[in-house]
Amino acid sequence: MKRVKVLVSYNGTKFCGFQRQPKDRTIQGEIEKALTKMHKFNIEIHASGRTDASVHAIGQVFHFDTNLNITEYGIIKGLNSLLPNDIYIRNAEFVNDDFHARYSATTKEYYYLLSTRDYNPIEKDIIYQYGKNLDVEAMREASSYLLGTHDYSAFCHMRKNYVRNKVRRIDSINIVEVDSMVKFTFKGSGFLKYMVRILIGTLILVGEHEINPEVIKEILESKDRNMAGKTAPGCGLYLSEVRYDN
Amino acid sequence: MKRVKVLVSYNGTKFCGFQRQPKDRTIQGEIEKALTKMHKFNIEIHASGRTDASVHAIGQVFHFDTNLNITEYGIIKGLNSLLPNDIYIRNAEFVNDDFHARYSATTKEYYYLLSTRDYNPIEKDIIYQYGKNLDVEAMREASSYLLGTHDYSAFCHMRKNYVRNKVRRIDSINIVEVDSMVKFTFKGSGFLKYMVRILIGTLILVGEHEINPEVIKEILESKDRNMAGKTAPGCGLYLSEVRYDN
Repeated sequence: MKRVKVLVSYNGTKFCGFQRQPKDRTIQGEIEKALTKMHKFNIEIHASGRTDASVHAIGQVFHFDTNLNITEYGIIKGLNSLLPNDIYIRNAEFVNDDFHARYSATTKEYYYLLSTRDYNPIEKDIIYQYGKNLDVEAMREASSYLLGTHDYSAFCHMRKNYVRNKVRRIDSINIVEVDSMVKFTFKGSGFLKYMVRILIGTLILVGEHEINPEVIKEILESKDRNMAGKTAPGCGLYLSEVRYDN
Repeated sequence: MKRVKVLVSYNGTKFCGFQRQPKDRTIQGEIEKALTKMHKFNIEIHASGRTDASVHAIGQVFHFDTNLNITEYGIIKGLNSLLPNDIYIRNAEFVNDDFHARYSATTKEYYYLLSTRDYNPIEKDIIYQYGKNLDVEAMREASSYLLGTHDYSAFCHMRKNYVRNKVRRIDSINIVEVDSMVKFTFKGSGFLKYMVRILIGTLILVGEHEINPEVIKEILESKDRNMAGKTAPGCGLYLSEVRYDN
């Protein structure tokens, strides 16, 4: 058996998220179907984490174990020939048995794209069509209060208490505006369910001058989801990189 | 009765082209359905021209006649509230009765987007994922032979002889490469069915060094569709502007 680390990109528009589900079309489901076809028995993959419905990935990582006598290149070509055109295998490499796509990950990077221009149907599934100007400088100031190691309960999906420990570390938040598109880039130890999207929804309140930048600090300290902004739409979110430092 | 000129953008991915069809989802069909709902009787629209399946528009123009006591702003808001999210009304204005979206048009502009980078599923419906480098300088040279007034039969869809006169005028072809994306912009008097896409398919042959730039001149003069390149995919094509000069 050999362990394979795979780098994959996908357009999340037509998927009910990453995680395998009995009936709905998911990214894990499609990849496992393709791998099972290649191997002629059931193959399970392990990803760095899930992404939600409509969320995209440029650099998602998963691993699986194979007993096939195949090259890395053969895995890439074989999988891409079997996968639908909204999933694309960018790379595959053999790794040590102790590599785990989820547990070995050290940092993750997500970015979020938001348009301040008039609604554009061409980009509707890949850039959040916000349609109004935002005060980028104020959002930058607000984002500085979010850096470091904190309990991010205020910025986490409430429905399920799916993890007890809501402490995470955000290393950097970068916000740039180019051609009426705002790009927010988050790097950190990992992110809770909906965390980036709730952070965006809350930064938007700052960018609209609904709340002052310092209020972000209070929201963070409150650990109360109701204090934060709305969950921004998934279509603007991209899992861009998962890092595995040795 | 008042004549209304409307500027519309759409994402062509989920449409069987512009033109109304009895069963398939089309842009004209959706717009007429919305207008008919607003007016409570059948409204027909007249566009500057058709676009094919999967082709997008940033600046398509159509007109219709209304007897409603409504403002231009009311038309925009009303239509957008009734239309699906892949069609967007950018503007509406009252015009003279002698304005005709098709017959009054003087020039049209189309652009085509092609990626030379590795396949990206995020952009698959809006940028042609070509995936290889092209010699942009050679394509620019080739494009110079296409300018002016010519019979473009070699670059026209063959199946139907839907128009007898295949003479058109191309005023400019601009080719720029930015960040591994090549953008071809065509301005001219009008374009035949598939003309821009066949021009792209033929310019690609030049960009790949399959044929020399001068060969374009021979292909044009041959008036033979079989001499030209493939029809490039519709997903990279955008109707960007229709001009009505007075």
